Amino acid sequence: MELWYTQPQTDNIRFSIKVKEELFSGKSPYQQINIFDSDEMGRFLIIDGIVMLTSKDEFIYHDMIVHVPMATNPDVKKVLVIGGGDGGTVRELTRYAGIEKIDMVEIDRMVVEACQKYLPLTASKLNDKRVQLHFENGMEFVRRSKEKYDLIIVDSTDPIGPGEGLFTMEFYKCCFNLLSEDGILVNQCESPFYEKNAKEMRKAVKKIKSLFPISKVYQYNMPTYPSGHWLFGFASKKYDPIKDFKPEKWEALGLETKYYNTDVHIGSFMLPTYVRKMVENPE
Amino acid sequence: MELWYTQPQTDNIRFSIKVKEELFSGKSPYQQINIFDSDEMGRFLIIDGIVMLTSKDEFIYHDMIVHVPMATNPDVKKVLVIGGGDGGTVRELTRYAGIEKIDMVEIDRMVVEACQKYLPLTASKLNDKRVQLHFENGMEFVRRSKEKYDLIIVDSTDPIGPGEGLFTMEFYKCCFNLLSEDGILVNQCESPFYEKNAKEMRKAVKKIKSLFPISKVYQYNMPTYPSGHWLFGFASKKYDPIKDFKPEKWEALGLETKYYNTDVHIGSFMLPTYVRKMVENPE
Amino acid sequence: MELWYTQPQTDNIRFSIKVKEELFSGKSPYQQINIFDSDEMGRFLIIDGIVMLTSKDEFIYHDMIVHVPMATNPDVKKVLVIGGGDGGTVRELTRYAGIEKIDMVEIDRMVVEACQKYLPLTASKLNDKRVQLHFENGMEFVRRSKEKYDLIIVDSTDPIGPGEGLFTMEFYKCCFNLLSEDGILVNQCESPFYEKNAKEMRKAVKKIKSLFPISKVYQYNMPTYPSGHWLFGFASKKYDPIKDFKPEKWEALGLETKYYNTDVHIGSFMLPTYVRKMVENPE
Amino acid sequence: MELWYTQPQTDNIRFSIKVKEELFSGKSPYQQINIFDSDEMGRFLIIDGIVMLTSKDEFIYHDMIVHVPMATNPDVKKVLVIGGGDGGTVRELTRYAGIEKIDMVEIDRMVVEACQKYLPLTASKLNDKRVQLHFENGMEFVRRSKEKYDLIIVDSTDPIGPGEGLFTMEFYKCCFNLLSEDGILVNQCESPFYEKNAKEMRKAVKKIKSLFPISKVYQYNMPTYPSGHWLFGFASKKYDPIKDFKPEKWEALGLETKYYNTDVHIGSFMLPTYVRKMVENPE
Repeated sequence: MELWYTQPQTDNIRFSIKVKEELFSGKSPYQQINIFDSDEMGRFLIIDGIVMLTSKDEFIYHDMIVHVPMATNPDVKKVLVIGGGDGGTVRELTRYAGIEKIDMVEIDRMVVEACQKYLPLTASKLNDKRVQLHFENGMEFVRRSKEKYDLIIVDSTDPIGPGEGLFTMEFYKCCFNLLSEDGILVNQCESPFYEKNAKEMRKAVKKIKSLFPISKVYQYNMPTYPSGHWLFGFASKKYDPIKDFKPEKWEALGLETKYYNTDVHIGSFMLPTYVRKMVENPE
Repeated sequence: MELWYTQPQTDNIRFSIKVKEELFSGKSPYQQINIFDSDEMGRFLIIDGIVMLTSKDEFIYHDMIVHVPMATNPDVKKVLVIGGGDGGTVRELTRYAGIEKIDMVEIDRMVVEACQKYLPLTASKLNDKRVQLHFENGMEFVRRSKEKYDLIIVDSTDPIGPGEGLFTMEFYKCCFNLLSEDGILVNQCESPFYEKNAKEMRKAVKKIKSLFPISKVYQYNMPTYPSGHWLFGFASKKYDPIKDFKPEKWEALGLETKYYNTDVHIGSFMLPTYVRKMVENPE
Repeated sequence: MELWYTQPQTDNIRFSIKVKEELFSGKSPYQQINIFDSDEMGRFLIIDGIVMLTSKDEFIYHDMIVHVPMATNPDVKKVLVIGGGDGGTVRELTRYAGIEKIDMVEIDRMVVEACQKYLPLTASKLNDKRVQLHFENGMEFVRRSKEKYDLIIVDSTDPIGPGEGLFTMEFYKCCFNLLSEDGILVNQCESPFYEKNAKEMRKAVKKIKSLFPISKVYQYNMPTYPSGHWLFGFASKKYDPIKDFKPEKWEALGLETKYYNTDVHIGSFMLPTYVRKMVENPE
Repeated sequence: MELWYTQPQTDNIRFSIKVKEELFSGKSPYQQINIFDSDEMGRFLIIDGIVMLTSKDEFIYHDMIVHVPMATNPDVKKVLVIGGGDGGTVRELTRYAGIEKIDMVEIDRMVVEACQKYLPLTASKLNDKRVQLHFENGMEFVRRSKEKYDLIIVDSTDPIGPGEGLFTMEFYKCCFNLLSEDGILVNQCESPFYEKNAKEMRKAVKKIKSLFPISKVYQYNMPTYPSGHWLFGFASKKYDPIKDFKPEKWEALGLETKYYNTDVHIGSFMLPTYVRKMVENPE
């Protein structure tokens, strides 16, 4: 039976996954949520028509969003996750015994509940006792919060719909204020390849560079995202992800990872020339 | 007008590019060749239904297939290119003044002529006077040749159809024999992500490892190839691409490149854990 | 969200319906069954990857499979339906007060139950007290049965999978034997347009012509079936659907129909020349 | 090689034909014109992204647009064809020895020239000496012309782009005025099935009914048009296509046709109930 999910990655590029079965379809107050099963990618989550994660390649995204900052500063104790309703980021964070508290702010309860039911491997650690779920707008949470965090991870959708506020100057400023003196901000930062993604990436980079003394971009290969070449932003008040990187310390934790390793850590900051130029002159 | 070229990247994944116009369609004795124009990717070349290159991302492939070995040993003088009928590999090679001779062995004259006509930016340097074109089977050429080369680049299609012989043990042995004492072999080495590609990758890696004292794999992000995560093999009798890498020497050449740089060189060998495991235990 | 059901109507033709939601997916011992919801066609039923019915155009199929024979002989009292698990044929039959008994033989209980749940408008009359459901192989039922029927309707899938037996000579012979002296056989008879369908149509027509004194083919326009030009076979021991047609008698019943009317009845037997030739010389 | 032409028949329905080769692509001042070759449909003509004709089913369209009016009045001598740049309508008209003059008014010379080159079987009779080609706007031609015609055939595209004027009240009025006392108007009249087509059909029918004493709609099955159920309008000052139909006279001409015959003529006016209602109450 030919049932295909198609993401128009641009107006002129389509990426399609053959679907075995639809497991969930729901319209929350914020977005359209679908979960499908497939032979090639296993189960996968679609929000507003866009691939959020597939069971086959989510390990790449979650390895890179968590282990790069954690290996830069393995002493992180308090973490704020904005977005990340699928639970994958939290799952990786909970592997660090040194982390004492994880606040996760996800606007859409339906995403969390659907992932807990249909993507248990990804969402499995949301009930870790260090995790506190806040079902509210990320922008409002950071505006209001008085906490201090060692690490803030912005695990957002693209800057359309509910994710839009998470790409604004005000949001980044609030994050800056919530970070401790040696705090790190990691944010989902789009892609350099297709024009629309690159434009959003440059805008985000420009804003963050204007706020943080240290601001970099690192890359990873994400097969189900447009072009497969995807980026995270790394910003910090104190730590440089390369100069301050102490691989032995992370190695000593003995975590097994399928994508991340301490070499990949370094290589991920070695950007192709055209990407480096975008990041250096984001306008 | 909706005209779409679709590559079934696996049985369950389709990648589609909206076509503006078909520029060329021909059936040679070896394969089906099509060249299309598109808004997103510019002109692109399809062989036996598979994307060979697009004008938008071919710079990545050709930067990485040429500049990694050339920066490892900038003294290369004689080069053999097997395949590469589109001319992109030769184009990058001709930028090195030190290269004295390039033998290019392409089985299919129709590919070369179509690319010269419709992809002139890629094929432009095939008439460089150091280049000699040999329209014959790559396997037979390496079996017969008595030359010695400093660099052999296997710029082949996937191991089906005319490209199949270029993935055999005999072929790699012949390449080994044709290489000078400090010779380097670079080969198109598929991808670790989708099972079919990964299987071919492992088979090629295993064969090359059994022959060469130094054998590595390096990665690049190729948006129009399946998964976007693609590999080249690097094998040598003498040079390690990292230990023997002297970035200053390459920098001194003053070549401008859009993807490759001396950081990318190093980062490209920093493989994700699951890829590293495949390469270390290719069976 | 782009989710598309696609039917490859031939190797070279694809027909796709945008899906809102999957309502049912099940694998019975006989076939793969899916029910989807869509904006354009409403809910629709797919069996083994092929469109069986859509809420938007099923009225055409069911009008034509039932009212043509019933208007030819409005005195029909006992009906046998082979297949027709969606219930649409039975729904139309139950509108005739004169019908006393309907035996429906459907091999696949899962089809019936899924349609009762998700396609209630089609399946609504399966619980009419004149209807008796037999969940068994149609071939075996007709082989064994000793009943006499005034009308047999073969409401089958294409002649692959469980529908295959319903296109054999033995099956038609058994139907002949089960029909009363003035009995009528109507059968789903594929399409004249695409080669594969036309071949099956000719084979079925040839077999039926060899058995029945009166054998015709009539057409209807079914938008979601390949080519939209679709046929039913009409065979009888006694009644000619045109010569014995008494439109007034049917009009007197006062049935409202959206596709069928007594003009359409006549027009449906007026076949295009190329179809007429196929039917006259089915080999 | 997977190259597919896709027509979005509605926002939610796609019809796709696998393409072997693109034969022609051109942008005239009026529209985008493409001609493809395919295994299933042979060569086919696309205008502004919409299927105009395929070699496999154009016989149906051209049989029905020409032979229905010509069999109603085989004494037609002067014919005006508006549109029809592919030449198929003229080809069928030239088979009538009694026709003395055919004026064909096609706005787009590029369509005619491309069809003459790549669709010679369809366009073959445009050089018949009774045919005069006028490359101009159909609306302006009928506004200006002082001729009298026995038959006007509006062989237009859908009412968007250059075809739009050919669906206006003013255009139909001018046609009325150009027709002789027993003149017949036949016009491409869209389809009853999908909402957008049905709306255009009703609007056209309503206008023509208000002008002509006799106005009907007849149907044919066109596999490559949306839904396959397609209509022509028949309007006349004198002749009813059924009451005045003398099949023997047309039969006597001895024309061989693959779709049309004198039964199909009659059956084509026997409309399904829902279509009949639309035509009777076009608003």
